[in-house]
Order: sequence, then structure tokens, then C-alpha cells
Amino acid sequence: MQQSPHSSPQSHSISASVSDSAAQLSNLQQTYTSIPRVRPQTPLLDSITAPTDLNALTSAQLITLADELRLFLLYSAGQSGGHFGANLGVVELTIALHYLLDTPNDQIVWDVGHQAYAHKVLTGRREQLGTIRSKDGLTAFPERAESVYDTFGVGHSSTSISAGLGMSLALRYQGRAQTVACIIGDGAMTGGMAFEAMNDAVQQDADLLVILNDNDMSISCSIGGFSRHLAMLWESGYQVDISETGKPILCQRPDMQTFDRRKRHKEMRDVPQLEDNVFKAIGFTYFGPFDGHNIPELLRVLSLAKQVKGPVLVHIYTTKGKGFAPAELDPVGYHAISKLPVEIKNETQSKAVEKSQPNIETTLKYSEVFGQFLCDKAAKDDKLLAITPAMEEGSGMIDFAFQFPERFFDVAIAEQHAVTLAAGMATQGVKPIVAIYSTFLQRGYDQLIHDVALQNLDVMFAIDRAGLVGEDGATHAGVFDLAFLRCVPNMLIAAPKDENECYHLLNTCYEYQGCTAVRYPRGTGTGAVIEQPAHTYKIGEAVVESVLGNDAASKKLVLLAFGTMVATAQQAAERLISDEALSCQVHVVNMRWVKPLDSALLETLLAQGMTHIATLEEHMIMGGAGSAVNEYLLNESAAFKHNRPAIRNIGIPDSFIAHGSQAEQMADCGLDVNGVVTQLQQLLS
Amino acid sequence: MQQSPHSSPQSHSISASVSDSAAQLSNLQQTYTSIPRVRPQTPLLDSITAPTDLNALTSAQLITLADELRLFLLYSAGQSGGHFGANLGVVELTIALHYLLDTPNDQIVWDVGHQAYAHKVLTGRREQLGTIRSKDGLTAFPERAESVYDTFGVGHSSTSISAGLGMSLALRYQGRAQTVACIIGDGAMTGGMAFEAMNDAVQQDADLLVILNDNDMSISCSIGGFSRHLAMLWESGYQVDISETGKPILCQRPDMQTFDRRKRHKEMRDVPQLEDNVFKAIGFTYFGPFDGHNIPELLRVLSLAKQVKGPVLVHIYTTKGKGFAPAELDPVGYHAISKLPVEIKNETQSKAVEKSQPNIETTLKYSEVFGQFLCDKAAKDDKLLAITPAMEEGSGMIDFAFQFPERFFDVAIAEQHAVTLAAGMATQGVKPIVAIYSTFLQRGYDQLIHDVALQNLDVMFAIDRAGLVGEDGATHAGVFDLAFLRCVPNMLIAAPKDENECYHLLNTCYEYQGCTAVRYPRGTGTGAVIEQPAHTYKIGEAVVESVLGNDAASKKLVLLAFGTMVATAQQAAERLISDEALSCQVHVVNMRWVKPLDSALLETLLAQGMTHIATLEEHMIMGGAGSAVNEYLLNESAAFKHNRPAIRNIGIPDSFIAHGSQAEQMADCGLDVNGVVTQLQQLLS
Repeated sequence: MQQSPHSSPQSHSISASVSDSAAQLSNLQQTYTSIPRVRPQTPLLDSITAPTDLNALTSAQLITLADELRLFLLYSAGQSGGHFGANLGVVELTIALHYLLDTPNDQIVWDVGHQAYAHKVLTGRREQLGTIRSKDGLTAFPERAESVYDTFGVGHSSTSISAGLGMSLALRYQGRAQTVACIIGDGAMTGGMAFEAMNDAVQQDADLLVILNDNDMSISCSIGGFSRHLAMLWESGYQVDISETGKPILCQRPDMQTFDRRKRHKEMRDVPQLEDNVFKAIGFTYFGPFDGHNIPELLRVLSLAKQVKGPVLVHIYTTKGKGFAPAELDPVGYHAISKLPVEIKNETQSKAVEKSQPNIETTLKYSEVFGQFLCDKAAKDDKLLAITPAMEEGSGMIDFAFQFPERFFDVAIAEQHAVTLAAGMATQGVKPIVAIYSTFLQRGYDQLIHDVALQNLDVMFAIDRAGLVGEDGATHAGVFDLAFLRCVPNMLIAAPKDENECYHLLNTCYEYQGCTAVRYPRGTGTGAVIEQPAHTYKIGEAVVESVLGNDAASKKLVLLAFGTMVATAQQAAERLISDEALSCQVHVVNMRWVKPLDSALLETLLAQGMTHIATLEEHMIMGGAGSAVNEYLLNESAAFKHNRPAIRNIGIPDSFIAHGSQAEQMADCGLDVNGVVTQLQQLLS
Repeated sequence: MQQSPHSSPQSHSISASVSDSAAQLSNLQQTYTSIPRVRPQTPLLDSITAPTDLNALTSAQLITLADELRLFLLYSAGQSGGHFGANLGVVELTIALHYLLDTPNDQIVWDVGHQAYAHKVLTGRREQLGTIRSKDGLTAFPERAESVYDTFGVGHSSTSISAGLGMSLALRYQGRAQTVACIIGDGAMTGGMAFEAMNDAVQQDADLLVILNDNDMSISCSIGGFSRHLAMLWESGYQVDISETGKPILCQRPDMQTFDRRKRHKEMRDVPQLEDNVFKAIGFTYFGPFDGHNIPELLRVLSLAKQVKGPVLVHIYTTKGKGFAPAELDPVGYHAISKLPVEIKNETQSKAVEKSQPNIETTLKYSEVFGQFLCDKAAKDDKLLAITPAMEEGSGMIDFAFQFPERFFDVAIAEQHAVTLAAGMATQGVKPIVAIYSTFLQRGYDQLIHDVALQNLDVMFAIDRAGLVGEDGATHAGVFDLAFLRCVPNMLIAAPKDENECYHLLNTCYEYQGCTAVRYPRGTGTGAVIEQPAHTYKIGEAVVESVLGNDAASKKLVLLAFGTMVATAQQAAERLISDEALSCQVHVVNMRWVKPLDSALLETLLAQGMTHIATLEEHMIMGGAGSAVNEYLLNESAAFKHNRPAIRNIGIPDSFIAHGSQAEQMADCGLDVNGVVTQLQQLLS
């Protein structure tokens, strides 16, 4: 690792270097090649305790500040893990915005929000940044409760223009002259609600500054007609500059050779052109494209643009991962990073570390189980098509996309469209699978009801990240899906207890003709090995996993466990029967299906004289799987009327669960083994 | 009423006339001025039993067919009521499509679908059209189960391009060369998922023919930047015609004086221009605008356009209500019509009719109650702002919009945006109300969770058309809202028993600081007079409406009724106590709140020794209000553990409920008084 000769504020302990060629080109930013393990010296950054402190800085100092801020973000990400590339890309923009705007009086809305780390640092949270995504630490996204500078909680994509427009209209109505600036990526722009908001902003002739941060990326590559359009604006070689009076001026674009981009669009059939501009067409005043890493240019453009009346869009180019060479080369891989591992000093330590790691080689993530199922099944069944709304990597579909490119459909950030696209496909005799995170399926809910279930079309939903998701926190929790899916007629809903069951439940639901969902959690499970070949389960059939304790015990408890809670139930059962004072026999049931329920098994258990029933799920109690059990027992069960066991529904209580590790979140909800045992003891007492 | 001299196929009994000036201008269509009460003679139409029968017709005959079809639609709408203006607008387009395409091999997807009446007539359902929207009759929208020509069930807006793209991709994958044509209105185009689908269609380079049926209308006037853009394309005076080889040719637009349009956009600041075209920008091949009532022109354009590879958009202009003079003048008023009233022959009949009508003057619809609340409250509280996604009339907001134009926000068909816009507004210290139908709130579900409830922003949802909605059928039923809302933390949910309670619950939720919803049904209620001034209820407090029967009865039944079911519960209770053999006392409770539940009252009732509990709601049983009661009683209630009453949840069973009158639908679900009594008798026996 080399230290740049003209880098000044860093100590020699910092693993940073400057790419000379980049420095010569722009003379603006340093480029680092590794993540510092020791906190770098950032004297200028340290002097900024609030955005107003920026006002005293010169342009040259702002550029130095950008270098320091970037270096600090690198260091901090190494310490805490977290979102990475997008944050490095908006360092200059963040500085420019906080320099120009009178925040928090003026309002900044960051779309998706995982690029708000620089914003957090500049707004008084520098020293807490290392706690980001940890329990009781800073949240991964802007959050209103965390800072007055976080104007709007963001986490799902494409909301910023709607939220910013709401602010702008409310401010205008109240006669308050404050600037509202929304920063939205080119990926987020493909979400339909961004378009809905732009349509309305023009209708309202609202004063709204939208900054399109175009890095040719969402989490992975941006795709679709919109992305192609942005590429055309780039390839045209022209720029709509802004005059001193805020008027658009068409001119040759200045040199921006640092951007080596748009390779994906080389196959464009059309001649690059500027004649059609989607933003102008819809009624925005458009300026761009500009270099989003050039602070003086940003200051010039944005200071003029914020004076322009009506809806304005400023189109800037940035590089995701900017200033960190490995991330610039691999922006997808560096979307987020994990904490740096502890440095190994000697062999003893090395072995200790090895031991403490789970066997990652053989333990598949659930998303990988899904990916394996996709590939295996597609090889046997040419009717299988698979759809993702911009989550190819996260949903474990890389291999499938490579092996079966003509059967893989990444529709961009467009959950509504993804669901109805599947419905349309299903009408033509193929079998589409929609791979979607639970939290994002909320975006396609109406389409699932109206376009899939109502027509009982043959579509399978592979619902990833169901349950608590850890560090991403409440915005990404998948804890409502059972409630919102269970009430929909024609739906089948399965919840596997482990990776092997997940594989075969996917197969079972795939083979079923109709509308099905398999929900599985983030991360790894129990490590169950997947049996081959794929088989099917009987629809709606639950399994008694074990019966623990003495048949003569005075209390007979049955644990009706769904999905991830089967393993927890088993452990809780073992703890309960070891307490002789409880005199308790425990039956552990893997329910496997949330809809339909195995009512026959419930009747059998009731006939066996169960005295207590507990349902366990990683989902809200309200309306969840336990609620389904209640409905059955109270309304349908003949045996329940005679033998009235006490019932308890164990699940997530009625509140949003803050970020932390998944284990911490589960414990907070009383869904770890200790929490479950405590609740069961209460039930039994 | 005059009979046109050159109209041939109609009998003298038909109340139709031709507008001479229109006929001279285009010589294409007749214009009728009244709705025939006697079935007109339509010999050419009668000869069409399937679309293939069109093939033998000349262009002149197709034009005559359009006249006959329009006249038949007028007659039929008078007999059955139903959607109106949109159907008259697409008569020529429907004929042209079925003439050109090889349906059902080729696929036609009608967006929203309330313009598919002509399509139904031409595809073998002419004689059933009079049954449309009636129980066991034709559905109001295309439905796959109804006809092989109905390729996709539509009812909610903006789905057609997604569905059509799904079809196109599945066909391409299977090597099947069939045309897919989507017909989407300019109003539906504002729904974000249409944009998501266009983005993806370009990405996929799919062969897809999208016909933009631009009548400058959604249900009411189209608004926003997109509509303005279409107006610019019109005002430019240019047209992108299609060459014989399918290439775009820019030319002067031919005369289309019959379109007297775009008055709303007179205030446009910009010069009309053709230089920016949103469809071209996103990557579609664009042709238009063309006259959508000119059959030969449609045949020429569409026959060429369907040969063009890749995604193609053909932009046509039509007039909503075309060919029926009153509807052309008032397209909003004629969006849908009711059955013609029975003609009054003499005074005795007149009085009889008068008597059989409810007192419409004094009975407010729930939407009107909401409208009154809005106006009353806005007059007193200048923080009140109100938002509708293109449902100003339906949601009862006409008066409010007139009185408080600066506080009324019609955001176009854009439910996702509507919800997040409200959240953005709420951050600035105003109080937004989102007026939305229950079925359309499904479109904004993620935004409600993520942008409103998670941040506990001060937003009220006024949820109209909650429950069964009658003739619009399953696509428009609002029967999932309690399940999908109840599980969301921070939400308060109220359900009024009548109009008066609705008014004051709206006021109560408005005054509450946080995220609330009031759900109320379509149409009228019990006719309760609204008390002034507005007051607030205690949050979560239920009311014992009545205690009927002898205190010494052996059975004590409590009916926990939500919303509309309070009145039904009261009537059912009266029936039950009149049956002495049952020996039953009945307590009728108006629960008023779904969340939070009045647990104190439940405890009191249990302490009074209730032997049976029934919950009643106009909502799915699964996950609904009854489910909330179950959860409370089983998990929380101390009294329930000692005194274990039998429980029954009464609501909508687990299936989609077909169209019919609301009363018929309620009876089908066992939710009329008879059905409820039967279920309660089962509970008591």
C-alpha cells in the first residue's frame, strides 16, 4: 500500500493511497485502495459538528472535507459493516447540499436512505456512526426519531418525491418558504410511485428540487427503458446547463472522462439523442447531466436550481463506490460490506477464530436453497420462469440467471409490475415464480389479490426475509405477510422449519396448480442437508416432531410451531420437561402450512387430552398463524368444545421492532428459547 | 325526438336521432340523444355471433355495425345500468381490434375493463348483456371464467401493460407468434405500475402493442404532468404517422375538429411542442395521435403497428360518451348510469313509485357524510388537507374541493403516491386525510406501513366502500382491510354503526394525533341523522346497545358487532329472544373500534356470566375483527379463563364473493338477518 505524496491529513498508519491518474484528471478527490483499520486523522471533518459549520469553508476546504469524510466512511464501515458503495458516491453531493441549504429548516429527503451515512456524519452523528445497524445504535436509514435532520424515514425505494412533494405542498399552504430537495437514484426511479409523484408535482406546480443521482445502478445494474433513456442523455454528448437566471441552456457537455459508463447499453439500436427527455416531457424543468463529484460545479448548479420555480430535476452522474478503487470496480459486490474480520496475529488465535465461525461451506442460506431449487427444477421443467424486482443477488438467483437467462426476468424496482407480470405469464401456460422479500411484497399486495388470487392463477411466491431481518431494522421486517396473505382466498401458505423442508415445500407449491407462497427467513437455518431428489408434501399436513416427557404428566402441552419456531419449540420443550415441578408432557408439532391448517391433526391432539396449546410464529401475533389456529378451534373444532385447553399465541407483539442482530430482535420479542420458555411457564401455571 | 332521415336499421319506436352537423363532419357515426326504452333493431349486429363474423364485412358495414352496437349499448345500459361513457368511446376501437386480430388466439387486455361491454357483445355475449352486474349475470369487467375472449380479469387500474407483457414474454418463450394488445386509458397511465411495465417492456424488447385510448379522462378529468404532456402532443398539430413498412413519419396532423378538447390545459406555460415524447424517451415506438372513432383509419394504423417489432404505442383520441350527446357534454356524470326508471303512466302508479322509493332527500350516503365532515371540519381547522387518488366524486369530495380548492389534492390514479404524499405533509404540521376506497388502499399498503405507521405520522385514512360493494363484484370488495391494517402497529381502526357515528368517529380520529382509519360502507346506512356539533368518542370504547330477553334465561349471548353489523345484530337479537325455546338473553354491543378493542367491557360482560359470544363483521373472518376478539380472550382475558363461553366468528367465509346487489351478497355470506340468526342458533344449540 502506498501513501500518496500529496495527501496531507492522514497519518502513516492509514492504509490509503491516491490514484495519481484520477487525481491528475480532476484534482478533486483522492482514491483509496483499502479500508483503514485505525481511525484516520480527519481534522477538518472533526471541526464540523453541525451543517452550519460548513459555511465558513472555502471550496478547496470542501474538497478536502470530502476526502476526509470518505476516508472516515471507509474506516467506519470496516468497523461496523453496512451500506457502502452508495454512501461513497454521494459524499460531494451531501457536502454541497448541507453547504447550500439551511437544514433542518430546508428539507432533504434521501430516497431509500442507505446513502445517508455522510449526511449522518455531517449532522452531528459522526461519533455514533460506528454503532450503525447495531442494537440501540444509529439506524441504517434516516429516521425522524434519530435526528431533526432526518426529515423522513426511508428504507423502501422510490418514496422520496412523494414525501418531498407532500412537504412542499404543506409548506406552500402554510406560506413557509423552505426548500425541499429529494435525492433519488436511477434505480429508485423505476419504481412506479416515483412516476406518480412526478406527475402530481407538475399538476401542483410545486416548488420541488429533485436530484437524480444517476450511478447506473440500483443495488445491481439498473435496467429497462428508463435506464436506457438516461444512457441516451449521456451518449448524446449534450448537456442542459443552467443560466444565471435559471434558464435551460443546451450546450456541449464538458469533459467527464472519469465516467467510464453505459457499457450495458452498447447494444442500443437507436442513435443517441437528446430530442426526447422524459422529465421535460412530463413537465419538469430539466438540467443535466453534471459531474456529481465536482463540488464547485454542484454548488454552482444547485444554488441556481433551487431558485427555479416549479418542479426541477437536476441530473448528476456519480460513481457508486467513488474514491475506493475496489468498490468502483465492483459496485454490486460493494453495495454493502461486513465488518472487517479481526486481524490474525498468531496460529493460536487463528484456530480460535476458525472454531468460532459456523461451517459456512456447508450451511446454505435460505436464499441459496431457493436458488438451488430454481436451478434443479428449471433443468427438469421448462415451464418454470422466475421473476425478481431488482433482487437477483439477495434472492439467490445468480446461478439461475446464468444458467437460464431466457427464463430469468429482473423487472427493476417494480414490485407491483412483477406480480401482475407473473399473472400475465401464467395465463399462457407457464409457471412463473415471483421471488420477493416479504417486506417488498407489501408493494404488490393489491396485485396479488386482484390479479393472481382472484383469478386463481398458477403463480408461486417465494417470500424471502420473512420474519425479523436484523440490522436493516423495522423498515425491512417481514412480519405482516401471514396476516395480509391469510385472508386472501385461494392462497396456500407454507412455512418451512429448515432448509431441507424449504426445498421440498418450494417443490410442493411449484407442483400445485394455483396461487401459493412459501415464506422463509433471512440468513441460515438449522443447517439441515437437502435430500435429493425433490419430493412433495401433502398440502396442509403437519408433523408431530416429538413427544417429550411422561405420558402420565398432569399437563399435556402442545406446541404448534410455524417455520423457524419449530427448532425453538423443540428446545423450549426440552427445558420444560426437565422441570419436574411442572409435571408436563410436551408435543412439538411442525405445522408446516399456515393455510390450510392441519385440522385433522388438531382434532387428534385434542382427543388425546391436551390441556394447553401454544402457537409459535415469527410474525405479528395479530392476524398471524396463531390467529388461524384460534379461528379453527373456536369455530370449527368439535373436540375443542368438549376439551377446552388453555391457549396462548406466541409471536411478535404489537410494535415495530428496532434494528439489532436477528438474535437480539428475537430476544426482544420473547421469541428466543428463554422468552418462549417464560411464556409457556406462564401458560402452564 | 327526431329520427334521422338516413338512419336505416332502427324502428320508429326507437328514441334516437342523428346530429346532422356531426354526421356531416365525419359521416361516420350517428349521434343519439336519448336512451331507447325498446330494444332497437340491429340486424347487422345480430349477425355477429363471434369475432370471426366480422371478417366478411366491408368498411362501410363496420361503420354501420358501430352505429348499431352503440345503439344496442345505449338500450342495454338503460335496462341494466352500468358503466357507460367509456364503453361508448371504444365502439370503433373494439370493432377494429376484433376485425384485425385473431382472437382469442391473439390476446386483448382491457385496462380497468369497464369499457369492455362492446367487447362482450362481439364475443358472443350480446343476449346476456342485460344481465351485467346482476347476480349470476355477466360481470362488470372482463373475467377469465366468463369467456375465453376475456384474457385477463381487470377492474383495478393500470394493470394491462404488466399483464400483456407477461403474456407476450410467455408466448415468446414458448415460440408462439400471437399478438398481444393492451388498451389503456390516459387516466390509467398515471398509475405507477403502468410506467413500471413500460420500463420493463423496453428492457425485454417485447413485442407488445399498447393502445393509449386518450379521452382526457379517467373517471373524472385526467390531471398531472402526464395529461399535460398528452395535451402538448395534441396541441403541437403534428402527428407521427406509420409508413407501410412500419416506420414513424412526422407530418401535419389531419383535421380532427370533432375533438373539442384540452380546455383544462389552456394555462400551459410552455409552447406546445412535439420535441419531447415520453413514450419515445422510454423506448417505445410511438405513433399518433389518431382519430379513434375513424374505423378505416384505425384499421390502417393498427394493421401496420401490429407488425412492428418491439414495444409499440399507438396513441388514439376518443370521446368518452361518444355518439350519445348528453354523455359527450357531461362525461363525468355519464361515467356510469342507473337503470332507467319505470315510465309513469298515470297518477296512481306515480304515487306507488314515490312510495316505494326511500327518502333519498334525507338519507345521506356514507361518502356524503364524509364530505360533510370534511367541509365542517375544514371550516374550523385550517390544518385539514384532503387527498384523493382520482375519486373526488365517489368519495364525496365535490363540495369540499369547491369550497377549499387550496386544501384539496386529487393526485390522479396513484394510490401509493397518495399515501406517502400525506406522510410528507404530516411532517410539516398539517393534518392530511387520505380518502380512499378499501379495495384501492391495497395499492398503498406498503406506504401505509412504512411511511405512515412506522413513523406514527398524523394521518387519517377515510376508508370508503369497506365491505361488500355489490355490482362491481369481487374486484372492488373491501373485505381485507381489517386483516391487513390490524397487524400494523400504531394504527387505530374505527368502524361506525351508522352515519351519525361515522361523522363523529371521523372527528375523533381527526382529533387524535397519529395514524388512524375509519372504515365505512358503500351506499346508505340506517338513515341516522347527524347530530351537531361534532364531538369525540373515547378511543377504544364500545357501547352496549341493548340487552334483550329475560335476565333469568339459561343462555346469555353477547353479540360483539362491528360497523354495519350492529343493526343486523339488533334485529337478529330480537328474533332470537322471540323464540322461547332458546331461553336466551342477548346483549348487543356496538364495538365501534376494531383496534384498540374495548377489553374492559369484554371483562365486564364475562363477569356477568355470558355463556356465548359471537363476533359479527362485514369482512373476511380470517384475520378480521373477530380474530382480534379471539386473540384478546384467549391470551389476555382473566375472566375468560374461568368462565369459558362458546365463541363464534361471523363474517365473510374464505372465498371471493361474486357480484350482485349488496343485499344479495350479504345473504350469500350468511350476513343478512336470516343468515346471522341461523348461525347464532347453531352457536346456542
